Amino acid sequence: MKRKGILVVVSGFSGAGKGTLMKQLVRTYDQYALSVSMTTRAPRPGETDGREYFFVSRDDFEEKIREHGLIEYAQYCGNYYGTPKAYVEKQLLDGRDVILEIEIQGALKVKNQFPSALLLFVMPPSIKELQRRLCGRGTETEEVIRARLSRAQAEAEGIEAYDYLVINDHLDTCVAQMHTLIQGAHCTPGRNGVFIEQIRNQLKELAKGE
Amino acid sequence: MKRKGILVVVSGFSGAGKGTLMKQLVRTYDQYALSVSMTTRAPRPGETDGREYFFVSRDDFEEKIREHGLIEYAQYCGNYYGTPKAYVEKQLLDGRDVILEIEIQGALKVKNQFPSALLLFVMPPSIKELQRRLCGRGTETEEVIRARLSRAQAEAEGIEAYDYLVINDHLDTCVAQMHTLIQGAHCTPGRNGVFIEQIRNQLKELAKGE
Repeated sequence: MKRKGILVVVSGFSGAGKGTLMKQLVRTYDQYALSVSMTTRAPRPGETDGREYFFVSRDDFEEKIREHGLIEYAQYCGNYYGTPKAYVEKQLLDGRDVILEIEIQGALKVKNQFPSALLLFVMPPSIKELQRRLCGRGTETEEVIRARLSRAQAEAEGIEAYDYLVINDHLDTCVAQMHTLIQGAHCTPGRNGVFIEQIRNQLKELAKGE
Repeated sequence: MKRKGILVVVSGFSGAGKGTLMKQLVRTYDQYALSVSMTTRAPRPGETDGREYFFVSRDDFEEKIREHGLIEYAQYCGNYYGTPKAYVEKQLLDGRDVILEIEIQGALKVKNQFPSALLLFVMPPSIKELQRRLCGRGTETEEVIRARLSRAQAEAEGIEAYDYLVINDHLDTCVAQMHTLIQGAHCTPGRNGVFIEQIRNQLKELAKGE
């Protein structure tokens, strides 16, 4: 029997290095797939449909919403962004763990639809480093910093909804840590219901035979 | 700030190899301590007080019960067996992860007193192997097998109370797996409340400064 994949949601403060971690994770180990978002914004030079995003029309996106084809979606700057359900479900059935980068509101929506999703929150290595990454090196406008801080505060309020905190102190160490946490999650009883049921039935059979 | 240890409860079917796993875990990695039970039964030849058990009188044991000095206790064959709380708490404060082998009823009592305890359930590598271990090689009496099966059935009913299933297919692999699961458990938000609070306070300070 093939093991079903786990949907892994990665969130974290701005500048925590989520994107780099996820790319490295997928490069280092075989069993991961990155979820590709769907958007109505136009592709930028160098972007390929199905790699950075699935690029679709507004009509197609709204059709997807109506047919419940998205795990979650939101609008930014007049464009839709969402996570196509079919792609994720196919990868999970194929036994691949699917990695999805998303902010906290989206993460909670995902958890609602996929209760067995694993939620990881990426932290910078120290409070000092968090400050440096949020505030930059004096090159950011006050407005940008204020927006980042306000978003970080909202995110920090939701940390308890996550399964694990991952400290991004060193890329390879952190990627290895993410890998062991995700592989460990395959060992929960909730993700091994069929195996547990087999054990129970077998014990019943044995007891009958006695 | 020193990291507090995790209380790890190990249960599993008879013959799953729990004892060997735990000894190997403690031998292989530095940060573990085995919890030593307290009993009123007499020491057997070769047993040392404080190693196999803390050997005490019936009066002393009942005094421990009265002063709530035991995490859990039970009676078998007219003797008390229990887990002294002080020893476990000292090891946890010293930052050591404490490993405690105990059956399911005791495990639930431990979880009740230490909600952040991590519960591991050790499985034999296959259903066939489970059968072999429970039924032996034809050298066991029917009564012994029936008792084992009945106990295994009761244990199987409680598997969902555990955090993780560990498959004992190969000693070193399984010990490494237990180690990564326990170390991973140090990354949950619930076990990092102080760190999260520091992050939140720091974000508040930064927002004030803007």
